[in-house]
Order: sequence, then structure tokens, then C-alpha cells
Amino acid sequence: MRIVSLDEIKAVLPKIDLMQEIEAGFSAYSNGEVVVPPVGELNFEHPPGDVHIKYGYIRDDDVYVIKIASGFYQNKLLGLSNGQGMMLVFDQKSGKPLGLLQDEGYLTDVRTAVAGAICAKYLAPNNIETIGIIGTGIQARMQLEYLKNVTDCRSAIVWGRSESALDQYKTSMDDTDFIIETTMALEQVTDNCNLIVTCTASEKPLIRKDQITGKIHITAMGSDTPNKQELETNVLSKADLIIADSRSQCEVRGEIHHAIRNKKVSMDSIVELGEIINGDRQGRTTSSELTVADLTGVAVQDIKISKAVLKYI
Amino acid sequence: MRIVSLDEIKAVLPKIDLMQEIEAGFSAYSNGEVVVPPVGELNFEHPPGDVHIKYGYIRDDDVYVIKIASGFYQNKLLGLSNGQGMMLVFDQKSGKPLGLLQDEGYLTDVRTAVAGAICAKYLAPNNIETIGIIGTGIQARMQLEYLKNVTDCRSAIVWGRSESALDQYKTSMDDTDFIIETTMALEQVTDNCNLIVTCTASEKPLIRKDQITGKIHITAMGSDTPNKQELETNVLSKADLIIADSRSQCEVRGEIHHAIRNKKVSMDSIVELGEIINGDRQGRTTSSELTVADLTGVAVQDIKISKAVLKYI
Repeated sequence: MRIVSLDEIKAVLPKIDLMQEIEAGFSAYSNGEVVVPPVGELNFEHPPGDVHIKYGYIRDDDVYVIKIASGFYQNKLLGLSNGQGMMLVFDQKSGKPLGLLQDEGYLTDVRTAVAGAICAKYLAPNNIETIGIIGTGIQARMQLEYLKNVTDCRSAIVWGRSESALDQYKTSMDDTDFIIETTMALEQVTDNCNLIVTCTASEKPLIRKDQITGKIHITAMGSDTPNKQELETNVLSKADLIIADSRSQCEVRGEIHHAIRNKKVSMDSIVELGEIINGDRQGRTTSSELTVADLTGVAVQDIKISKAVLKYI
Repeated sequence: MRIVSLDEIKAVLPKIDLMQEIEAGFSAYSNGEVVVPPVGELNFEHPPGDVHIKYGYIRDDDVYVIKIASGFYQNKLLGLSNGQGMMLVFDQKSGKPLGLLQDEGYLTDVRTAVAGAICAKYLAPNNIETIGIIGTGIQARMQLEYLKNVTDCRSAIVWGRSESALDQYKTSMDDTDFIIETTMALEQVTDNCNLIVTCTASEKPLIRKDQITGKIHITAMGSDTPNKQELETNVLSKADLIIADSRSQCEVRGEIHHAIRNKKVSMDSIVELGEIINGDRQGRTTSSELTVADLTGVAVQDIKISKAVLKYI
């Protein structure tokens, strides 16, 4: 079994066409070619932490993948990152372990950011004027970084809850070629951006329906549990098109789940990202105003990225 | 994270009091101190194979453990062992990976054999005359090996389906101090042995009620799925005491599950191995004739053995 360090993983990523890999993953998923059992879970109280085991395979592929990812929210006190994790790749024909990717959660961050870029590719208005980012964490940085793959826009307005978080964010983005404006007034994002990515762990809606006018695409990637919510459910009912990374997951977690529970939208109306990639369903059209994509993270993204890393190592 | 090879694991095992570790595991399990979510599963058809992910932790312990074990039954064609696997040990306070034990399924074999010895310790008649082994595979060998921890008996009768399997078995046991007789007539085992361990993957009952007379303990460890069955359900209804490693698991897989389905026994009558170890329930008494223990394998055994290995490495 190949043991691969985080440094090795980071070194090999530029060789991989991540957009192509992850798009192919969503495509296979929506074609019913992917086996993804329910997520395994362990929860701890003292100190609080949770562990998720996501696993699955693409039928007739070479490999199956098991991802272990944990979040212990007091790790800072131990001088450790909250997120810990690894991806394990096995031979689908024999069960032989092929690779252990000690990514410490990094590949999950990357595949999540790539999914955001794929949403923008298929759903954002043609002319992205300014990108809006809601949040100041890791994904708030990485989503911008990976959006470079699909747009020439290098102007962003970033919303955060505190000046210090926004300052820190701006400093961390110094070495990118984005021109970044920061704000604590959410309207500054909604008034000026036609591609907005929400990247918070908020449990209360941040964006309201009345803030949204004109041709806008929103990718809501922060809410991946039943509790989290970044968009008022009215934002979804206003949308011309609502896209899920996985219909079955979005029915029970994330933005769509809240809108379904509030009877603001019905599952029939939800289109899967893979269906748009496959050409089975239409994405944004010239008459579309608001489109909303809800990303909860699908194991096929882990399968695709870990297999690709192992191939290029 | 410490990466531990199979050779290193084998070298360290003699330093560990395995009986004590696994007994403590069953004890904690029956005391309700162990969190064991349902087993994760992947199934493959071409070629046929299955993967099990067993995981859990003892409350207020240092670690949690995730075990990945697979069986691909055509691996022989690839020159590989059918069983592949590893155990992963993580810090329960931070999620930090502590150790990867590349045991290739060996620790599962060991902890299973140790559980057999624990059953014999608490449930076999005082004077074990001859040990009966049903089957000729890995566990048929390892159960005998670990029974040495609890009995001075070195006489065994081994039942198998073919002369060649029995010859192979006998040869493989040449370097042990057991005097081994082999047979293809099951009565030879039931007539002469008062401790019998069934170690097959049979899906049809092998031992019948009418074959069992006198003071006998049977440990049925082969049947760990809903389909497998080594004992006629009447054997269980004849027993003075039926013991499960895990009541909840045995309700849905293994011998007890068949007897429950056929209404031959009721779940109320089933005692857990840990309850006997804890002294909460009585094991064999002077008046007991037949006792039957059903082992399906519990994640707490994996937790205990992997933690101990990592400690001594």
C-alpha cells in the first residue's frame, strides 16, 4: 500500500484535471453508476467531536474508496487542526489496499471548491462581474481560487461577521490576483455580485429573498447538515432552477431540505448537477434570473479525487 | 501516525494479555459502555467480494477504532489472500490518527480465537477430555491454539468434508503439541468431545440435536451472517444456557437468529458473554448439561486488540 503525505498530495494536484475528474464523478452519480451507502458516524461529547466515514465506488471502476474525516472543535487548544482525515483507496477486484492518502481533510476542501467551480461553469450568468463570497474561512478562500478555472473575473466582495476576520481574509488572499473588497453589510454583496458563493456554518439564514434581484447564481456550499442554513427558504422558491449535488442527500440536509420541509419547493423540481453535466437537464438559459445550487458533498467526489491523486503519485 | 506491518504485529502479540483485553472488552460491551454503530458494507459482483467497516469506541477511553475487512473469494487466482484488511486507531480527544495496523485480517482471526477461549473458560465442563473442532480452515487451527490458554487438554478430533482438507489440516498442526485425530463422521466428534467449536461457513446445519448427549459446551463461531448456520435450531432449544457475544447482533445473524426465527428460543433467555464475565449472570453450573455460545464478532474486540497492539509497538 502506498502511503502518501499531504505534501506529496499538494505537489501532485496541479497535474490533475480536477474539473474533468469531478464533473465525471457527478455525471456517473446522476447516471446511477455510483454506489454510496449511508455515511457512517461517530459522535463524541468530551471534548465535542464527530467523525464521518464516507465510502463507495463507481460500478466497473478499478477502485473503491473509504474516507475518514473528523472535526474536533477544541483542537486549537491542542495546537491541532480541527479537521483530521484520510482517504483510503482499495482495489475493487481484490480488496487489496492500494493507497492511504494522509490528506488531513485537504482533498475534501479541494473537491468541494472544485464542485463550486463546476456550478459556476454551468449556472452562473455569462458575464460574471463581481464574485460575492459569504464567509471568511477556508472555503471562502478556496472557492475563489478554483473559480479562476471558469471565469476571468478577478473582482470579489467578501462578507464576514467581524472586521478582524475580514482583515485576516484579505491578508491571506494577498498573493492571489483578486481585487478584494470586504464588508459586513450583506447587501453590498447581493447588490453588486451576480455569482455568490455562501461558505459559512450558519444555522440561521443569511440571504433574504428581497435582497436578490436580476440575474444571479448562488452556490450554497456551507450547509451540509440538517441544522445548517444560509439562505431563507423563500430564496429557493424564487429561483428559476434549483440544483442539488445529490437529490437524496439534499432531501435530508442543507438548503433544499429546509425548503422542502417548509413546503416552499417540491423534490420533483430539483435538478441534479450531474444531469446538467450529462445534458439530460437544462442549466441556466437566457431567460433564467435566479439559479441556486446546493452542495452537500458526495462521496463520488472523494472517489474521483483520491483515485486521480494515486494515479499521478 | 504509526504505520505497523503484519510482521511487527505478530512480534508484539506475545507481550499482550489477550484474554484479559478481550474479556475487558466484552465486559464493557455488556455494561453498555461501548458505542458500536451498524456495520458499513460494500458488495461487489464481478468478481464477488464484500467489504465490512466496523467501528466504534469505549466511552471515556483514549481511542476510537475503524476496521476495514474484505473478502474476495477469487483472490486465489490473483495469488492473494481472500481476506484483506486493516485497523485504524484514532485519538478519541482530537480525531488525530494514531496508528494504521496493516494486519491483513490477522488481528480479526486472533480476537475471534481469543473469544472462543473465553467461552471455553466460562462455559466448558471442568474436565475437558477431548476438544472437537468442526472445520479445517484458519479458525479451526487458531481456536485450538488459543484454547491452550484455558485448558491442559491436548487431544482433539477434527471433522472435515474431505480427506485432503483433513490431511492438510493435520500437517499444518504438526508443530503444535496437540494429538489430532481427523474424521469425516461428525458423530465421532459429538460422541467423544465435551468442548466443541464449530468453525465453518456452512449454510446448512451440521450438528443435530440427537447427536448431543451429556455435559457439552458448543461454541458456534462460524456463522456470522443471516445465511450461515452450523447448528440445528433444536440444538439451541435443548441447551440449558445460550450465550451471545452481542444480543443485538445475534438477533439478526448467526445461530441464535435462526432459533429465534423458528421460535425455538426467545431473546429473553439469551445471556451475553460480558454479563457472565461481569458476574451479572451465571455461566455453567454443576447441573448444566448443554451450553451453546454464539459468536458473531463484536467491534469492541477490534477496539481492544488494536489499542493493545499499538500500545506495545
